[in-house]
Amino acid sequence: MKAAVLHEYDEKLEKSEFVVYEDVPDPRIEGPNDVIVRIGGAGVCRTDLHVIEGLWRNNSDVQLPYIMGHENAGWVEEVGPGVTHFKPGDAVICHPLVTSGHCLACRRGNDMHAEESSFPGINANGGYAEYLRTGARSLIKLPKTLAPKDVAPYTDAGLTAYRACKKAAQHLLPGQYVVVIGVGGLGHIGVQVLKSLCAAKVIAVDRSKESLELAAKCGADELVLANGEQVDKVLALTGGWGAEAVIDFVGEGSAITEGLEMTRSDGAYYIVGYGGKLEIPTIDMITSEKRIVGNLVGTYPELVELMALADQGKVHLATAEYRLADANRALLDLHHGKIHGRAVLIP
Amino acid sequence: MKAAVLHEYDEKLEKSEFVVYEDVPDPRIEGPNDVIVRIGGAGVCRTDLHVIEGLWRNNSDVQLPYIMGHENAGWVEEVGPGVTHFKPGDAVICHPLVTSGHCLACRRGNDMHAEESSFPGINANGGYAEYLRTGARSLIKLPKTLAPKDVAPYTDAGLTAYRACKKAAQHLLPGQYVVVIGVGGLGHIGVQVLKSLCAAKVIAVDRSKESLELAAKCGADELVLANGEQVDKVLALTGGWGAEAVIDFVGEGSAITEGLEMTRSDGAYYIVGYGGKLEIPTIDMITSEKRIVGNLVGTYPELVELMALADQGKVHLATAEYRLADANRALLDLHHGKIHGRAVLIP
Amino acid sequence: MKAAVLHEYDEKLEKSEFVVYEDVPDPRIEGPNDVIVRIGGAGVCRTDLHVIEGLWRNNSDVQLPYIMGHENAGWVEEVGPGVTHFKPGDAVICHPLVTSGHCLACRRGNDMHAEESSFPGINANGGYAEYLRTGARSLIKLPKTLAPKDVAPYTDAGLTAYRACKKAAQHLLPGQYVVVIGVGGLGHIGVQVLKSLCAAKVIAVDRSKESLELAAKCGADELVLANGEQVDKVLALTGGWGAEAVIDFVGEGSAITEGLEMTRSDGAYYIVGYGGKLEIPTIDMITSEKRIVGNLVGTYPELVELMALADQGKVHLATAEYRLADANRALLDLHHGKIHGRAVLIP
Amino acid sequence: MKAAVLHEYDEKLEKSEFVVYEDVPDPRIEGPNDVIVRIGGAGVCRTDLHVIEGLWRNNSDVQLPYIMGHENAGWVEEVGPGVTHFKPGDAVICHPLVTSGHCLACRRGNDMHAEESSFPGINANGGYAEYLRTGARSLIKLPKTLAPKDVAPYTDAGLTAYRACKKAAQHLLPGQYVVVIGVGGLGHIGVQVLKSLCAAKVIAVDRSKESLELAAKCGADELVLANGEQVDKVLALTGGWGAEAVIDFVGEGSAITEGLEMTRSDGAYYIVGYGGKLEIPTIDMITSEKRIVGNLVGTYPELVELMALADQGKVHLATAEYRLADANRALLDLHHGKIHGRAVLIP
Repeated sequence: MKAAVLHEYDEKLEKSEFVVYEDVPDPRIEGPNDVIVRIGGAGVCRTDLHVIEGLWRNNSDVQLPYIMGHENAGWVEEVGPGVTHFKPGDAVICHPLVTSGHCLACRRGNDMHAEESSFPGINANGGYAEYLRTGARSLIKLPKTLAPKDVAPYTDAGLTAYRACKKAAQHLLPGQYVVVIGVGGLGHIGVQVLKSLCAAKVIAVDRSKESLELAAKCGADELVLANGEQVDKVLALTGGWGAEAVIDFVGEGSAITEGLEMTRSDGAYYIVGYGGKLEIPTIDMITSEKRIVGNLVGTYPELVELMALADQGKVHLATAEYRLADANRALLDLHHGKIHGRAVLIP
Repeated sequence: MKAAVLHEYDEKLEKSEFVVYEDVPDPRIEGPNDVIVRIGGAGVCRTDLHVIEGLWRNNSDVQLPYIMGHENAGWVEEVGPGVTHFKPGDAVICHPLVTSGHCLACRRGNDMHAEESSFPGINANGGYAEYLRTGARSLIKLPKTLAPKDVAPYTDAGLTAYRACKKAAQHLLPGQYVVVIGVGGLGHIGVQVLKSLCAAKVIAVDRSKESLELAAKCGADELVLANGEQVDKVLALTGGWGAEAVIDFVGEGSAITEGLEMTRSDGAYYIVGYGGKLEIPTIDMITSEKRIVGNLVGTYPELVELMALADQGKVHLATAEYRLADANRALLDLHHGKIHGRAVLIP
Repeated sequence: MKAAVLHEYDEKLEKSEFVVYEDVPDPRIEGPNDVIVRIGGAGVCRTDLHVIEGLWRNNSDVQLPYIMGHENAGWVEEVGPGVTHFKPGDAVICHPLVTSGHCLACRRGNDMHAEESSFPGINANGGYAEYLRTGARSLIKLPKTLAPKDVAPYTDAGLTAYRACKKAAQHLLPGQYVVVIGVGGLGHIGVQVLKSLCAAKVIAVDRSKESLELAAKCGADELVLANGEQVDKVLALTGGWGAEAVIDFVGEGSAITEGLEMTRSDGAYYIVGYGGKLEIPTIDMITSEKRIVGNLVGTYPELVELMALADQGKVHLATAEYRLADANRALLDLHHGKIHGRAVLIP
Repeated sequence: MKAAVLHEYDEKLEKSEFVVYEDVPDPRIEGPNDVIVRIGGAGVCRTDLHVIEGLWRNNSDVQLPYIMGHENAGWVEEVGPGVTHFKPGDAVICHPLVTSGHCLACRRGNDMHAEESSFPGINANGGYAEYLRTGARSLIKLPKTLAPKDVAPYTDAGLTAYRACKKAAQHLLPGQYVVVIGVGGLGHIGVQVLKSLCAAKVIAVDRSKESLELAAKCGADELVLANGEQVDKVLALTGGWGAEAVIDFVGEGSAITEGLEMTRSDGAYYIVGYGGKLEIPTIDMITSEKRIVGNLVGTYPELVELMALADQGKVHLATAEYRLADANRALLDLHHGKIHGRAVLIP
């Protein structure tokens, strides 16, 4: 099959050719629960640039060359002998984690914390290819309203936003406030999810006017330009108290300190973006009784829930399509901030 | 009446006489919901030393001279015209916060986060005295099994431990682990509360062997001496995963980093002690999906719940009694680490 | 003042004059927390007809003559000496229950289960009058967007629907279903609340096509005419499984059995309407693991939340205005099914 | 292998030989996830008598002859080709339900509500035999402290009690009350579970003094003999209010009405036993705002949790051992009320 293969790291992203579009052996069924998926679309994610930079070398045991692509959807091509609930031709979206389902975390429905798992595109061959080998437990059948190429980025970007916002929605009451910091690929999904799951007022904070316009289209109730006075503006909008929930899709630079300052006493600050460092005196945590909550993608049932929102039109995602053969162009465009919405590679 | 009055700060705690035992005017009913309580016991807390040091000057608007003492219990002496549910002679314990009950936080049962409140002993005259003026909403009737002087320290030290441990118990399942860092005045209550409210195994961590012996008496399942290898020992006891909950009664020095390292992925780190600084890269919060939870004393209903535990003998508290006239000796003994259990001043 | 006073019961509702519009003494401040409210609007409720029929004689200790009216809103006229957070002229809506706030249920935010309370219009003089005496704890300030006469019926009809639907929303996930049985005065609020608080699909069931049209305007996703095949239709819409939540605003006749049949295993059946009898073999409760949940009006904070929804335009209520002098006409129109929306008496 | 086989129903349980101890073909691995377990112990349950009576003919699609026995534990004998996490010789306890793990209920951790499942001993051959075929997903490894024959009855009787009591413990606070109606095979486990998971006071209600003695040994705080005044006694013990939770292990006769009467307003009545009929006017559900909760065995993770309690000695179970060849004697003894604790068949 054809695939876009990563042969070597490029720590400063200086090349114009990160991956090589070439022929590789087709993946094959190895275990009874394996499934081969014909890729309909593979999302291009900032994490892929981090992989090329070598940032993940220490966090995964992958060996080059390998195939990136961790946001995948397509059609079932072949199933292992233990797979009875999928058949060739089924349109599917792939939950990013492949688990056996045996550990207690999986049995409790919390598969993101499986004791053993693989993550195609991160520590195994991914979906920048015509075919992908994954496990049957990772697959969700798509309704006819949703095409694989249109939903692939939900598997990681969308799901991460969904899980964090769902956690917040579970304690947000009418009359309360939630702040979304950063209305990009994840944040604009987050605003839509919040508007679907609760009645709290959504305050969108971003440095870019374009992003705030996108937030407004997604249903944000208040728009705050991050021009240095964003904390004061959020406090003013919330009667001086701060918001009951702050969801930080940036997670670096001043966003962290500001996000905590925007959080009301007894409220929660949800970290989704990363790159920076959280620093706060313990006495401030005591007197405010705040919670700081990490967020890691989402579970299989949560991806099912997100697909229900997409199917009902409550959440939509802007995508930019590229041919698989043009993977390098998609990666470069992402690197240079030229992509609006989410890039998807189509074989 | 007699009272032990703070006339001036002593930033280095160098004096032998912090407070002056002297005659002051009796407190009087001012508002319809005021209550005068004849003090049966007033707990002596490390926070009182911090007050003397002047650490709270910026956090409260108190003016010297004033009367410290924020852990109070006694008997109702006189009630305001709006008070119908207490009468002189009732034995009572005083929730530390005096609130009007009008704001939404109070109406939701979350009175620790009242929009307006006073804190006798911190920002108003407290219980190092024969009489205390407080509000009717702060009072809880004591069962006959419990004497005011024996329970006074529950109002702050006990309640703070109770609330944090209750939060943890609500998600701890049989077969899981909870670490208690620091088995002192609060921590030894914490161990007892955890053993009463859930079936998780309690791992006590402390630098002192005496404290670990106390932890064992309180029911701790595992004892870990904090001699530099405490993180490894906790990981070994938990199968390499860490504990589902860590309750940090120290909150300064290396305890913070170690506490987070002892916390399992998808687990929670509860901050109770303070003085240090929390520092963690956001990527570590993402990949582990941990929660960091601040804790601030506890609500009125939670003090009722703690009294039920004490009444049933499920929680007990070691106290050392001093006469109110000897307040300086009690404060000095606390400062010099000579008190085992909790000092209580008795008029 | 003028009031519409009930002087005698009329078990068969045969008279044309149920109440007498006459002069009565003004209510006066009696306790320190009393408030006199000048009535802006008083909702007319089917419960008022039941009061006239004498159905509540055994459930309340009221003595005739007395003034009905338990859905009240208006302006503060006078406050008792203990009331500091309201002043004459404040526009307010009255939570139906007047409590002292002392018992543990109130302290936990669950004031509907107060150990002691009064219910103006049911067991004390109510709002079919120019003025009402109530307690300060029952009052909520209205935003300027909401006029007393337009929101009075939220205090009982709206609040009851809100609380039941909020309970359901807390466990309803995207992709799941909720059935609303009976889209009348309460049910049409219920549909709007569900659409605001969760993303489950709402299936409205009613015998009347007009009611289903109202349900559609309120946002219901599926409409099912109750013509005898409603259970089968709901099962068909839910893949044969039933809905994860069923909210029964009828609570009598066949609705009860049908509601339980429409409830999925592991789902919840919420009772709001009443008049009938619940009958189900215990084995059916075991094998299905269903929950049956009673619902009683709502708490003070929940009325604040509902006002936030109304203020944001997420919930609206159709009202028909009558002069207080025409109270009998309003009651007759209600009795004869001539009122669309909710009748409100205006002094 | 040898097995005790049911060849024909006996509606009145009049025979002395219900099952035939005879040679049958060994079960064989059929699917990739099948496991053959060598039985160490199989619990004898009242449900087995109901199966012999033919009561389950309409609720399961089993054909005679077949092998009963749904409470099984033993050692892994052989595993299918897809099973990698168990090996021959592993001591295991069998969760009663065999599921594929594909449906959303399973993925959410709620495997009792799997869309497809088999129940060995009920609708497939069970454990009254030397060997049992089950699915790998149903198996839990036993710690060395627990022998299969001693824990087999936990899989159904114990697990059912655990799940219901865990639900109650999640809302029971110190100072509150829980009633256990019926302290037999399930109820005595229930008392121990409640004492392990919460600090509420446990009131045991039973017609038999011996059962109340057992309740006392299990830690019940109050004992109430069901001699006709049990409702009044429970109300007296709870200050006239009733208990916040009532767990009914009887579920027939007057227990149902009494259980509801013992339940406090805003409290929950949990149904575990069955046979009777629940009848209550909807108005009583409204005014009391009670919840009625069905309970169906428990999930796989809950059986893991129960094993942790047993391993720690927090729950213990009295068993009476019989040889498999003496299955008829065990069934007769159960029928005639001669068994104290739980009968277990040992091959």
